[in-house]
Amino acid sequence: MARAAREGALLGSAASLFATRGFAAVSVREVAARARLSKPGLYYHIRGKEDLLFRICHYSMTGILAGARAAIRAHREPVARLRAAIRAHLDFHWRHPDNLVVLMGQRGSLSPERRRRIVEMEREYLDLIRAVIRDGQRRGVFRRADPTVAAFSLFAMLNTLDGWYDARGTLAPERLLDEVERLFLGGLGAPGRDRRAGARSAGL
Amino acid sequence: MARAAREGALLGSAASLFATRGFAAVSVREVAARARLSKPGLYYHIRGKEDLLFRICHYSMTGILAGARAAIRAHREPVARLRAAIRAHLDFHWRHPDNLVVLMGQRGSLSPERRRRIVEMEREYLDLIRAVIRDGQRRGVFRRADPTVAAFSLFAMLNTLDGWYDARGTLAPERLLDEVERLFLGGLGAPGRDRRAGARSAGL
Repeated sequence: MARAAREGALLGSAASLFATRGFAAVSVREVAARARLSKPGLYYHIRGKEDLLFRICHYSMTGILAGARAAIRAHREPVARLRAAIRAHLDFHWRHPDNLVVLMGQRGSLSPERRRRIVEMEREYLDLIRAVIRDGQRRGVFRRADPTVAAFSLFAMLNTLDGWYDARGTLAPERLLDEVERLFLGGLGAPGRDRRAGARSAGL
Repeated sequence: MARAAREGALLGSAASLFATRGFAAVSVREVAARARLSKPGLYYHIRGKEDLLFRICHYSMTGILAGARAAIRAHREPVARLRAAIRAHLDFHWRHPDNLVVLMGQRGSLSPERRRRIVEMEREYLDLIRAVIRDGQRRGVFRRADPTVAAFSLFAMLNTLDGWYDARGTLAPERLLDEVERLFLGGLGAPGRDRRAGARSAGL
């Protein structure tokens, strides 16, 4: 295995262990065993356990930011941009569920300096989404609402799905995406595809 | 201090320590010191560290459930009921911020049996909110939307506030409450007080 592939597998193993049992409870030895590396082999790739945590968080925020930027580049209308950004966030979540659980629940275990770097990336994401909301407000597509409350509400909806949503249940991922989109855009007063009370819907 | 008051102070000390440093990292000795009890004195009130965690979670869910039930009893219209329930949830959050941080972030450290009891209470809360949403849909006040996605989205908005909202910042608690209400009720298609794009608002 090439070095990059081995490191990818290593981060995946670590994310899975941290997500299940928590950063504090997992030893470097366990991460090495899960990744089929010796402990010295593991230290060839990383400097320590916190290094793994940082790389998982950094990888997550890099992926999420890239998705939001691509969504904004690909569309010109605020509603289409938000729809694409929501889809990109959920796509990342479904491809890397453990990563997001670790990012959300355990970034508090990072050293202050590294935590600051992740918080900066989160701030960048917040600014991207708020800019789209403000643009929609200027164009009269969204009602006046606090863009910060709206953006954090969206992140809350997206980042807590792992706590209750089961993609194998009755609500298919595409339906969930549609429901989240309509709740959020409706909350901003955007004219939805069928937002009238009692209108035709995808069914309950 | 009477036994009940001492236990209340004990739970508060434990919640504060668990919220700041995490359940796993805090020792029974530290909880005792913070509550100004000897370790044997502490064991007069509780059976162990997990007992403290359970009592904090149970206290939180009891308070939140009581608030939601009172909100539903006090009003007859679905919009008024949800408004009052949102207010009650945030009121509890502001009175007991550490409790909610512990409930949300650390209930995973409970034993399976005790975790099940907390999950049952959470399920009861979910059912209360979904029933109000369904009632609003039957009355044609809310659009057709998946009540489960809507209810969990509301909980997500409310339960992640401690991650970003600062009551001493520019957005006063009453304004935050109003913003959250309008986002959520607007997402359900409820006719708001001023939901038209560009309508008069509380200002950005």
